This record gives sequence, C-alpha cells and structure tokens, in this order.
Amino acid sequence: MTAKRGINFLQTPGPTHIPDRVLQAMQRQSIDFAGQRFKDIAISCYPDVKKLFRTEGEAFLYTSNGHGAWEAVLTNILSPGDKVLVPETGMFSLSWKSLAEALGVAVEYLESDWRHAVDPARIEQRLREDGGQEIKAVLLVHTDTATSVTSDVAAVRRAIDAAGHPALFAVDAVASLATTDYRMDDWGVDVTLSASQKGLMLPPGLAIVAANAKALAACEKATLPRFYWDWRERLKEHHYKWFCGTAPEHLVFGLRAALDLLAEEGLEATFARHRRLARATRAAVAVWAEGGTIEFNVIEPVDRSEAVTTVLVAEAWDANALRDLCYERFDVSLGTGLGQLDGRGFRIAHMGDVNEPMLLGALGSVEATLKILGIPHGDGVTAAIESLAHAG
Amino acid sequence: MTAKRGINFLQTPGPTHIPDRVLQAMQRQSIDFAGQRFKDIAISCYPDVKKLFRTEGEAFLYTSNGHGAWEAVLTNILSPGDKVLVPETGMFSLSWKSLAEALGVAVEYLESDWRHAVDPARIEQRLREDGGQEIKAVLLVHTDTATSVTSDVAAVRRAIDAAGHPALFAVDAVASLATTDYRMDDWGVDVTLSASQKGLMLPPGLAIVAANAKALAACEKATLPRFYWDWRERLKEHHYKWFCGTAPEHLVFGLRAALDLLAEEGLEATFARHRRLARATRAAVAVWAEGGTIEFNVIEPVDRSEAVTTVLVAEAWDANALRDLCYERFDVSLGTGLGQLDGRGFRIAHMGDVNEPMLLGALGSVEATLKILGIPHGDGVTAAIESLAHAG
Amino acid sequence: MTAKRGINFLQTPGPTHIPDRVLQAMQRQSIDFAGQRFKDIAISCYPDVKKLFRTEGEAFLYTSNGHGAWEAVLTNILSPGDKVLVPETGMFSLSWKSLAEALGVAVEYLESDWRHAVDPARIEQRLREDGGQEIKAVLLVHTDTATSVTSDVAAVRRAIDAAGHPALFAVDAVASLATTDYRMDDWGVDVTLSASQKGLMLPPGLAIVAANAKALAACEKATLPRFYWDWRERLKEHHYKWFCGTAPEHLVFGLRAALDLLAEEGLEATFARHRRLARATRAAVAVWAEGGTIEFNVIEPVDRSEAVTTVLVAEAWDANALRDLCYERFDVSLGTGLGQLDGRGFRIAHMGDVNEPMLLGALGSVEATLKILGIPHGDGVTAAIESLAHAG
Amino acid sequence: MTAKRGINFLQTPGPTHIPDRVLQAMQRQSIDFAGQRFKDIAISCYPDVKKLFRTEGEAFLYTSNGHGAWEAVLTNILSPGDKVLVPETGMFSLSWKSLAEALGVAVEYLESDWRHAVDPARIEQRLREDGGQEIKAVLLVHTDTATSVTSDVAAVRRAIDAAGHPALFAVDAVASLATTDYRMDDWGVDVTLSASQKGLMLPPGLAIVAANAKALAACEKATLPRFYWDWRERLKEHHYKWFCGTAPEHLVFGLRAALDLLAEEGLEATFARHRRLARATRAAVAVWAEGGTIEFNVIEPVDRSEAVTTVLVAEAWDANALRDLCYERFDVSLGTGLGQLDGRGFRIAHMGDVNEPMLLGALGSVEATLKILGIPHGDGVTAAIESLAHAG
Repeated sequence: MTAKRGINFLQTPGPTHIPDRVLQAMQRQSIDFAGQRFKDIAISCYPDVKKLFRTEGEAFLYTSNGHGAWEAVLTNILSPGDKVLVPETGMFSLSWKSLAEALGVAVEYLESDWRHAVDPARIEQRLREDGGQEIKAVLLVHTDTATSVTSDVAAVRRAIDAAGHPALFAVDAVASLATTDYRMDDWGVDVTLSASQKGLMLPPGLAIVAANAKALAACEKATLPRFYWDWRERLKEHHYKWFCGTAPEHLVFGLRAALDLLAEEGLEATFARHRRLARATRAAVAVWAEGGTIEFNVIEPVDRSEAVTTVLVAEAWDANALRDLCYERFDVSLGTGLGQLDGRGFRIAHMGDVNEPMLLGALGSVEATLKILGIPHGDGVTAAIESLAHAG
Repeated sequence: MTAKRGINFLQTPGPTHIPDRVLQAMQRQSIDFAGQRFKDIAISCYPDVKKLFRTEGEAFLYTSNGHGAWEAVLTNILSPGDKVLVPETGMFSLSWKSLAEALGVAVEYLESDWRHAVDPARIEQRLREDGGQEIKAVLLVHTDTATSVTSDVAAVRRAIDAAGHPALFAVDAVASLATTDYRMDDWGVDVTLSASQKGLMLPPGLAIVAANAKALAACEKATLPRFYWDWRERLKEHHYKWFCGTAPEHLVFGLRAALDLLAEEGLEATFARHRRLARATRAAVAVWAEGGTIEFNVIEPVDRSEAVTTVLVAEAWDANALRDLCYERFDVSLGTGLGQLDGRGFRIAHMGDVNEPMLLGALGSVEATLKILGIPHGDGVTAAIESLAHAG
Repeated sequence: MTAKRGINFLQTPGPTHIPDRVLQAMQRQSIDFAGQRFKDIAISCYPDVKKLFRTEGEAFLYTSNGHGAWEAVLTNILSPGDKVLVPETGMFSLSWKSLAEALGVAVEYLESDWRHAVDPARIEQRLREDGGQEIKAVLLVHTDTATSVTSDVAAVRRAIDAAGHPALFAVDAVASLATTDYRMDDWGVDVTLSASQKGLMLPPGLAIVAANAKALAACEKATLPRFYWDWRERLKEHHYKWFCGTAPEHLVFGLRAALDLLAEEGLEATFARHRRLARATRAAVAVWAEGGTIEFNVIEPVDRSEAVTTVLVAEAWDANALRDLCYERFDVSLGTGLGQLDGRGFRIAHMGDVNEPMLLGALGSVEATLKILGIPHGDGVTAAIESLAHAG
Repeated sequence: MTAKRGINFLQTPGPTHIPDRVLQAMQRQSIDFAGQRFKDIAISCYPDVKKLFRTEGEAFLYTSNGHGAWEAVLTNILSPGDKVLVPETGMFSLSWKSLAEALGVAVEYLESDWRHAVDPARIEQRLREDGGQEIKAVLLVHTDTATSVTSDVAAVRRAIDAAGHPALFAVDAVASLATTDYRMDDWGVDVTLSASQKGLMLPPGLAIVAANAKALAACEKATLPRFYWDWRERLKEHHYKWFCGTAPEHLVFGLRAALDLLAEEGLEATFARHRRLARATRAAVAVWAEGGTIEFNVIEPVDRSEAVTTVLVAEAWDANALRDLCYERFDVSLGTGLGQLDGRGFRIAHMGDVNEPMLLGALGSVEATLKILGIPHGDGVTAAIESLAHAG
C-alpha cells in the first residue's frame, strides 16, 4: 500500500473521531491520583455524566470497555442461576447474552431478524407468562451498533409495567449516549451502561454505568462474585475507591474535556446534529438503493439509528471488498458487517465529533467506490447535499 | 455562533492541514540548540530540502514567513537602485513589487489581467529592449495563490536566454513547492523561495530560500543592507549561524517529519495526488459553472494551479457572504478573494495534506452553500466523484 | 494556593513520569480497531511484553488497572471456595486478600510487620502442613508499593517445591516489572500480573497478565464466573477477542512506544539505572536518619525495593504534613503512607522514566522541607550526589 | 551514548522549558489566519504583551528570533551612516554591534571586561562629548545572556538625560523580560526588543518589539531600507499586515497561553521566583567557589542576573569537558561559554518555567560532575537547599 496523506475518515461506529480539545486535555503528564487536583477533576465529572444519562441515580466510572460494563451491570444486580430476558437486536444482544451465560446467568432470548426494533408486545407477553417471576431483569440494547436497529426504550418500560412484572430494566446505551435522546429516569430504566469511544468522543478505555435506587438495592442482594465491578466498593468515601485502585487519569482528563464540549454545544443541539447527519446519510443510501443493489438493513425508517447506518449489498457483491477498497483508495474506514452480516453489509457511522463535510467526504468516497466496483447506484451524495442544505 | 463539532476543513491556500506526525514531532520540549542532537536534525534537513527544490545549490532556512523570504532574496542579490522586472500574476506579484520598492529597488511591472499565465514572449521582448542591462533580475511568482494562475517557469528561463540577458531569475515557489513539479536547476532558476505552511504541511513560521552559484556570486556584490537575511552569515561553519541566532527548533522538528512524509509518499506520487484532486475540483467547478453564475478565474485550463482553484461569482452575488456562510454552516474555511477579487471570488485550496474525502467534504459543503443561497449550479460534486473514481 | 511554574515532580509510586515519546505516540486519532493497522501494532506488542516478564507463556492485555488484574488472575485459576495462601507484605497483600474473599475465595493470611520480606520458611512450613492440598495457590506481592518490601520470588518457589506442594504460584509484579530483575519462567512463577503506570511509564489503564502452561491448564477447570477476564475468550483467533471488545487503542499505541524505549535502553541497563537511583535515595535517607527522626521502613537493606523507598517519621511529626508542605512549596508529589503507615510514613518513588537530576530535585526538596519543619537530619543530598558520582 | 531516560534538564539560557499548557495550546491544527477566530486571539495578545514590557507604546510581533528583532529595531529608527553608542556587556552587545555595522550603521563601542555592569557615568561622559549629536541611539543589552551581566537600565536613562542628549534609548530585554523587573515607560526606554524562548517559555521563533511615541516618530524619518520589519506596515488596520504576511499561528497560540500563565502567577511573583532561584544558585556557586577553582564571572553581586549565572572554571580545567560530562552522565544541558569564555565558563540558566526541584536537580548534577572530575568544591547544593528552605 502506498503512503497515505490527509485525514483518515474514521466512520466506524466506535472508536470515533476525537476532538482536538480532548486530545489536548490528555496530552499531559500524570498527576498524583491521591491528591486534591485529581480528586477535583473526578468529582466534577459525576454530575455532568448523570446529566448525560438524565438520571438522579449513581454513576460509576470503570477502566474497561463496554464488555466490562456489561459484566459490571450483571454482577451487581444478579445472583448465580438468575434468569434474564434478552430481546434480540443484533450482534450486541447476542454478545451480551453470551457474557451473561458465561457468568452463570440463564438467558431467555427473544429472537428477531436483526432488521426490526424490539417488539414491546412480545416482552409484555413473555413477562405476563412469567408467573413465578423468575425473570430478574430485561436487558435491552438501545441501539445495536451492528444492525443500527434502535428500539423504543420507553415502550419496553411500559410493557414491563403493563405486565406488572418486577424485573429490573437494564439498557445498553453504548451507541446512543450523547447521540440520541436518552432519558434514564423518565423512561424508567434501572441501570444503564455506556462507553467512552462513541458519542463521548474519547479514546476507548472508559466505561460508565448508572444505577437508580432500585438497582442499588438489588446490588445489596446480588451474589455473583465481584470486587472490581462492585458498586459498593466504588461508593466508598475515598476517591481511590471510586476507581477500585489507580484511576485512569488521562481518560478522566479527556472525559472532563468531552463533557465541557457537550455542555457547550448543548445536548439538544447534539441530538439535532446527529439527526441532521443521519437524515443526510439516509438520503444518500435511499438514492443509491435506486440502483437495486444497495438497501437499508433496517426496514422501518422509525427503527433506524441516528448514530450509524447499516447498509446491505446484494449477494452478488462482497461488502468486505467494497469496504477494503474504500479504505485503500480513499482512507475512509467504514464499519464492517458483524456476525451474520459479515460480507453482506457495511456500516457508515455518523456519531460523535462529526460534521457535514466529514459526512459528505465519507459518503462521496463510498459513492466513488460504488462507481469503481460497478455497483449500480443513483447520485446519493447530491441527495445528501440537498438534505443538509435544507436542514436549517 | 453555536459551538462547532468535528473537523474544521481548512481549505485556505496556507496554512493547510498539518499531518499528525508533524504535530507529534513538534509536541516536545526544546533542546539545547547548540548541542549535537539539534545539529544532527538540522544537518539532515538540508539535502532533503534541496531535493524538493531539485537543486544542487545552497538552501537557507529562515525564521520568517514568505514575505521575509522575498526580502531575503532581494537583499542578497540586489543593490540600492537596481531594477527588476516583475510580470504580474496577481496579488502576490503586486506585494512582492511593493516590498521591492520599499527596499529601494526599481520595479518594472508587466501588467496582466490576473486571469492568464505570464507570457514569456513579453518578457523576452522587454529584456531585448534592455540594451543597457539595467534589469538585474526577473521576479516570477510560479503559482499566484490569489489568482491560482500558474506560469511556465522553464519558458520564462528560455525567454531570458533567448534575449541573451544576464538578469538573475528568481522564483516564488511558495504555493508550488511540493504540490507541483518544480525543477530549479533544470529550469535554470537562480534563486527560489518557499514557505512552510503550504505543500510542506507545517505551521507557518519557516521560510526556505535556495540559491545557485550565480545567485551566490551575486550575493558577494549586492549592497542592500542586511544581516538577518544574509547568506554569507548563514553559510558559516557553526550551526548557530545557519539560523542567524536561535534556531526555530520546533519548526525544524516539524520540517524533519514533513520531509520524511514526502519521501515516503514520493514526490511523483505527491504531484499525482495534487493533480488528481485539482482535476476533481475543476470537474466540480465546471459543472457548477453550467448554472451561469460561477466561473473559473483562470481562463485557460493549462494555466490553472494544481494547488488552489480561484472561483469567481457573478456580480449579483457576494463571494464573501458565500464564504462566510460555508464557514458558519459547515466549518469549511475557504480562501477569500484577495485584492481586486475581494467580494468577487473565493478559493478552494487542494494542497498539502489533503486526500479525496477531505476534498469531497469541502466541495459538498460549497455545493450545499450554493443551494442555500440559491446560486444556480449543476451537480458538481457528482462530477468530482466521477473524476476521482476514474483517477486510477 | 499560588500558581505553580515548572514541572511537577511526580515521585509517587505510580502513576509515574511519562516519556515524551509515549505521550507523542498517544497523541493521535483513533483508528479502525478491526483493521490491519491496529492488529499489526497489537501483534507486535505480545512478544515484547513476554520478554519483559521473561516468560514463554501467554500474555493478556486488559483494559483495567492492577486491581482488575488481581481479579483476572483469581477468576481464571480458582473455583468458588478454593483456598489461597497470602503472605503479608503490606497494604497490597491486604487488598488482594480482600478482593479474593469478595470473590468467594478462602484466604489464609501469613501476617507480618510490613517491615520485612516474606519468609520462605514459613510458606514451606504451612504448605507442608496442608496435607489435603486445600491450598490452591500462593499469592505473592513481589514489591509491595506501600511498604517497599521486596521479597525473594525464587526463594518462595523453592519453598513451594521443597514442600512438594502443587499450589499455583501467582505473583503481583506491578511495582517490580521493568524496574527490578524479574524472571517468571526461571523462577517458576505460574502467573504474573502487572500494570501500565509504573515501570512501563504509561498512563494508568492497562493491565497485563502472563500465564504459563500450568496456569492455562488450571483455567480450563476453574469455575469462578468470568467473561471479561477469561483467558479462553482472549486466546481466540480474532484480535477483537484479545481485548474482549473494543481495544484501548491509545494505551496500546503508548505500550508500543514504551516497549521500544525499554528495548533501546536494554533491560539490564534499566535495572542498573533503578539500582543506581535506589542506592542514591538510600544514601540520602541514611544520612537524614542520623538526625534520629527519620528511618527506613524496611529494616534489612536486602529487602528494600529498587523502585520505591518508604520512609518513616518519628511519631512527634506528621508525615502527611511533611508531604503536603513538600508539594505546596516545591511541587514535589511524594507517595502517602498507606494503611497503618498513614501519617507515619511517606514514599519516594524512583521508578520508571526517572534520571539522576529528577531524583536529586526530589531529594533536595524533601531535605528543604525537613529544614522548614525543623526535623533533625543530616546532609542527605550531599550523600546522594556522592553516590551518583561514584555510580559509574 | 546509551539511551537516556527521564527529563532532559534544559538549563541553557534559551530555549527554556516549555510548560504543558503552552505545548497543549500549540498542539492543534492551523486555522484560517484571515478569519475572526485568529484575529481575536492575536488582538488579545497585544495589551498583555505591553503589560509585560510595562509600556503604553506599540508592540510588534515578528516571526523571527532575537537577531531579527535587533534588525527590526535598527532599521526602524536609523538611517544609513547613523552612529550608535553600544556599551559592551558581553557576546550579545558584540553581536548587536556586528549586525548594526552590517546594516551600514556606525558603532561606537564602549569596551568592558565582560564582568561588570555598564557604567552609566561613561555613557554620560561620551554623550556630553557628542556636541554635534551624531549619536542617534544608545543600544543596551539589559542582561547579557553570555556573561550574565545585568545593567541598570534606569541609570543609563538618567545618564542620557544628564547629558542632555536626544539619542534614542534601545534596550535588548531578551533575557530579562518576564524574569526580572523591567519598566520600559518608567525607565524612559524608547524601544525594547525581546524573544519568545526565555522568560516567555515558548519555543524560539517569535520576537517582540515595543516602541514608544518617540521611537515611532523616528521610524517616520528613518531611511534604512525595510519592509518585513517596518512598523508602518505592521500598524495598518488589517491583521494580515500585523505579521507582514502569514502569521505564525502556533507561536501566537502559545503566546496566548504563556501570557495567561504569567497573569495567573502575577509578574511580581514571577520576579520573586526568579530571585529565589537565582539566590539559591549563587549560594551553591559561592560554596563551590570555596574550593578555589570555581568563581562567578560577574564580580559584583548587584550586577548578577536573576535569569542566568555564568560560572568560570580555573584554567587548569576545561569548562566544555565539564559541560559535556554533565550532559552525558546526567542529561543536564548547561549553557556553554560564549566568545572569550569558550572553554573557560559554563552557564546555569534559571529562567522561565523553572521551579525549585528543577534547579536542585541541575545543581546536584553539576556538583556530581565536579566530584567525578575531581574539581575541588564545597557542598554547594546543601547551601542551595538551605537558601530555598528559608526563602519564604
């Protein structure tokens, strides 16, 4: 491969582009993590993190990725042999399921086709059937980054309530936090997890979990073995305990900067920007689809993510070859098709520190790649430009 | 103005985008500039700089911008009252003229319309008329960044030779170095100047001048007062003298990294990339021009720069308003119209550390701006995508 | 507090000073962690990490701190109710014990006075008594960062062997890796854990565990619930699995740079430098101790760490006040006394990216602080200078 | 040479240590230098720069080093053939003299022994003798970085006034700005120059000149050819003119950060810190001198700089060998002896972003070097520690 010049367009759905101010905040020496300077920075983050989750509960910062956060959620609210209900959304519901099973949790999996949002009615029905209340928690992936399926969190809560079921409600907001409206308390979510490398615009390595009073109460009774993940340890007074040992200082410095950036933009403006970019992406994909070879993975527009768009390519074509070529020729990194979508789909992320020209550059490169490969398509980028021009 | 997210697309013709590796190389403490470590880095730069200029002459690194380099060139080869011939190319031939006059040099200015390359025949004719050989130098701006007019350097040399005139030939390669084929020795240029913030992909602050034996000989006789710019000082043995005092270490660290990047890509590949991006830009502008409102500033395709494209907007429209809106809405910074083009034109730079998606993002944002303003235009971006797809 | 100028001298035993090259390596955008570029970097790290541990076993990189690594070690080799033997070394043996108990492991704790290295004879004796082989593992902290007690790892292995006991031997090398000679395979250690923020000169956030064949075999039978920590997951083919989800890219970039730095210096030279700095520190403390108020925490010179020196202050004085004043007046961050040493001791770290003037600056500031407080002391810094001058 | 670990102690008198915040401010992409964002930053710097100079005059920012600033001062206030009076202070008065002569200025040089401050009485006497007022300016180096001689600027002004002479008074404050009390207006200085890489804590590359009304009036009449340096150009309205072409953006970003740091510390506190460190350095040198081999270059304590201390070594010893060994063994970069002090002296800088442990680390390394070489000396570092402990 020849040397590349210019920016790599990182349109993978995490890690995402890191803003200069976040990089600058991390570009420094370590400091005494037991001292007041670090403590002040850490303390300042918690209320702002809770605002992102829109919760009055407790927030926990983990040195880990999203998989670690999954484990943190489960070990704190469950006991060996407990059963959970997991509606399928894609690769990430499947992985969470595997992780739960490895921890000794029984998983009941509500299968789906990876192309539709979760059906709250099915959840309500299953919970109604659970007369013995064996199901201890419902685990929902808000936006499945693999499929770009986004489900209606509030509707799932209403389903649980309609069934009169006491199960805890845990949501994976890894791809939706700070990209899509998310209201933990209003929507009755008991515990939410997220990670640093998507809407938070940080490098990977920091995971966040928020728990409400009901989840914290469950923690007291949960008996899955844990220490590193244990909320009880992390609620102790000394800030050394908040991180269960040495704090990941640089990621906390970066988090402070990212929270400032989000506050300056304003959450509503952040969501509006993501909507604007998502619409432009869909405008392009819809016109490309006129060629008969490209299609949206998610059938219903209302189920499509504001953060990432999964695109399918007809079987005659190899989505991975398309993705490789787009990277080789244009240095645009698209997300790969995961699991059953491997080779069949690719993903265009439009989450985090992204703006219009970044998106147009990525879409334009995809369109050029379609041309090179001879994949039939309409002039999608023109439609995206039109969409952005009218996006007020 | 609301907070912005994502990358600022810096499509101004200098400063340009700085590669990560250059920023990293500059992100460090100073070192003892009298010590061997710094000396080794500095020494390593000179041969590589000469390769960029394609000269066997001497190269000088100045802590200054391009204006300083203009002064360096003139004070080293001229004496008070000397006459020079300056063919007009745009704002930068005009500024160089003003600077020369301020230094006490008589300037004969060959006027032009800012829309055509320099006509070698006029230069030859004027030199033929200069029987007394009063003209001591011809000062040519290779690519005038304001107009994007690019002239044929070799043809100008042939014109000088055809006239049998001994004038020195000095070329401003600020916008062309490392963006466009430039061959100082082959083309018979006696002294060339450039600066850091364009094709060299560095922050502004470093200027480079290269001089051949004829220019160095002229330096011995030139009597314009000088010390900071004086080549004789800078040719002394101790590397403290090379920079006439404290060296601009960080820019030299950055230069080292930039030279490495250029070597890794290969100069021919660098030029090919610039050609590819320039063609795509012109493809877009040509289709926009079908709307009857947009046009190229440079009339003849052959005179157009590989590094920057100056676009004119019909008088009913305000080019500055277009430029401001493109920045406000899309964070794309276009070059402003300079001098007589103020309000009439804008510039799209495609020089330095730029690749396809960066260009498409910028062009897409310009097209969206045209739409918002209601400026008639064709689907230029689609043409640019087509151009890039077929650019092999 | 007034604004501070100059460098904070971070003489805490982790995090430690980060070299410029490591910071530079981390000062960059994220990249596609599923792509070849990241994979190549990750792959390149494993053999070099194993060289640091001096093992032919497997190495695992965790997004976590050292506490996480403790949990990783235990969950992979133990089953609920298993018993482990933990010889006391200080605060960190105590914390590892607490963590083990929280995971449902029975801990037998060999108490000590925090001022002496572990006594292999006691371990041998206890293992001999364990006729039923209930003890599944011996957990040893090589250098306890709180006390600066360093124990003889090879001697503990010999003790285990002498007892003919099959217990696994797990060692915490957080403070000793890349500061002190450590030979996992030669010394018969089955599993070793370490972390990024000490001898590895990285920010906190990355933990490393190495396991030999015996430990890997134990993993197959261990039934403590785990997924994030599970070696079996992390040994799968796809590099996504190596990190159990999204990789902590920036820390891996930094690790690559740190491994390069260590290779360039050479491990033996690294150890020699630590010894040289440790001796100079001890020379200073020994002379300070002549005042009758200061003393070494570790009684026997042979038990003292090469990486950190824990100093006790007579009860009439408050070690925390000393530490605070040294920070306020001189911006030198010393380690605090941990656990039972809180208020009684402070710690001077001399680990990682430290050289002679850094150490002398820290020691000089401590001595100035002793003067300000009126704590009797000899001219320790003069002794340290003498030691370094003769250190060849 | 073996690989080095830890911080290079840059105790050369420029460039000096760069604070993290300055490096962070420079660690970013370029921006449109014609746009409002850059203009706002630039505008904000001028008043703060004037506060540093303590002047109500005009300030000019040059992309150049201090030598360029010398040329800027002379070309703006003098005409060809003008005479200036330069009292000798060391290497830098000598170099300024050479530069002036190269520009066609006649220099009358008041010779000295490099070991004493300028004698105002001699200046007064010479000016009284200048009945024809041929002397157009007095050029004084406030602190000569080579000798560490610091002269009394106000006393020189009083001497000029006492002689009733209209000569302009120009001062080189390169080493004194932001390290030592400097009061341009109170002291009647007409034009002052400084540079970025000393008290300003920036990388080299930015020079600053301040001119009062008298100097600005002189500029109108001065006829030395100039354009790049010309104040008249730089006083024009458009900020493009302020920098005579492309602005050195990154250094301006850094300047903004440095001015903030200085404001946060407070100028008086900055001066007090430099005094404190200078006293400690002198305490060490005085005790080293008891060995009979080391001595201060500057004889009178009142003439010694707060920013740098030049130390002489008896002729039996090679000061360069000492300096080289200190660098090789301890990575402490001392200033070399310049000019007639080459091989006879070395310099310890204590200017800019320096604090107590940085100084003690450097002094301790020098003392260790003295020991290694067998140069007789007292326990200077102990005296420095004592001095700092009592420095309130």
